[in-house]
Amino acid sequence: MSIIITAFERSPDGGKGLARDTRVRWALEEAGQPYEVRPVSFSAMKEPAHLAVHPFGQIPTYEEGDLVLFESGAIIFHIASRHPGLLPEDANARARAITWMFAALNSVEPPILEIVTVKFAEGDKPWSKERLPLVLDRIRHRLSQLSARLGDAEWLDGAFSAGDLMMVSVLLRTRPSGILNEFPKLAAYVARGEARPAYQRAFAAQLAFNTAQPSAA
Amino acid sequence: MSIIITAFERSPDGGKGLARDTRVRWALEEAGQPYEVRPVSFSAMKEPAHLAVHPFGQIPTYEEGDLVLFESGAIIFHIASRHPGLLPEDANARARAITWMFAALNSVEPPILEIVTVKFAEGDKPWSKERLPLVLDRIRHRLSQLSARLGDAEWLDGAFSAGDLMMVSVLLRTRPSGILNEFPKLAAYVARGEARPAYQRAFAAQLAFNTAQPSAA
Repeated sequence: MSIIITAFERSPDGGKGLARDTRVRWALEEAGQPYEVRPVSFSAMKEPAHLAVHPFGQIPTYEEGDLVLFESGAIIFHIASRHPGLLPEDANARARAITWMFAALNSVEPPILEIVTVKFAEGDKPWSKERLPLVLDRIRHRLSQLSARLGDAEWLDGAFSAGDLMMVSVLLRTRPSGILNEFPKLAAYVARGEARPAYQRAFAAQLAFNTAQPSAA
Repeated sequence: MSIIITAFERSPDGGKGLARDTRVRWALEEAGQPYEVRPVSFSAMKEPAHLAVHPFGQIPTYEEGDLVLFESGAIIFHIASRHPGLLPEDANARARAITWMFAALNSVEPPILEIVTVKFAEGDKPWSKERLPLVLDRIRHRLSQLSARLGDAEWLDGAFSAGDLMMVSVLLRTRPSGILNEFPKLAAYVARGEARPAYQRAFAAQLAFNTAQPSAA
């Protein structure tokens, strides 16, 4: 049964791999599953056809036969549940790997995404410049806690898992701010994630997708 | 094997049930699992003993024999995976219920929690008053999308699931703002969640916990 995901027709980052389809591509590459990508334009994202698939009008989505999913966390969990390599067999280790998926999405990504709010959604507000350092300090606080937990370990809990895939993906979103370089252990952790062949393939695929010439008429 | 969760020694909301232990209590009540609660003070949360359990120094945590988890999403998923009643048997329906758990935590809770940032973390800043309406409008945008998807259904996808448990818990956090009343379908949805006997027991337990007299010397 073929897998179809959605991605921005043109990612706002121009192919830096920071949009949420990259993490889903990565999981599919780790699982060795082929997939197709359906591009969605910014205007189409807010139309009924796409809202029927993704109630919040975003990407990525995941379609596989009758199954329609949204939310990168849910999609990656689904992939990780059905294919070996992304979640440990041992029940307790598996629960801990899933914990890191939720931690990435509920405790680490939200403060990071506030950079987007302060720089873009509120970029024209008089407080924007003064507020940015507060937002960055909240990210630093969370990253210092994460760095302390990771320590000198290669991955967050034993072997590489979907928890690491999600955490690395979330941490990558700090890259434009330069803040990751303040945490050498986390920077090295992210680099280990990026060095995985499956990530390399996923990154190359999204880059090609986002830099392809529009098809001529 | 006994289950031990942690909760604020005294919740900042004084027992309104908005702290994240309530959702875990609710899941345990739905699953019919007895549990003990270990109180954690604000100072103890930042100490090594608690950080060893929860790297971000928060509550709730979950301990069951050798297994130690944090993140309410991961804890509730663990409970839902091991006991009937919170996730459908059908594989696709199960994946969709899990999708709503992630949606609650990654797409709905983050904009809601920005109220805490604007009112408390940045409550003394000159922009606080002017910024609050922007934060509230972002919540309204997300809630209007959620309300459109829910429509007149009782729950988000068929029978009540851990996805609804999480979404109702997250929506309850808007209650102090009054914003939920602007979305009658969502307000009724939350009321259906609160009416469940398991929620009632969880709420009563956290209220008793938070309003108990400190033990006399």
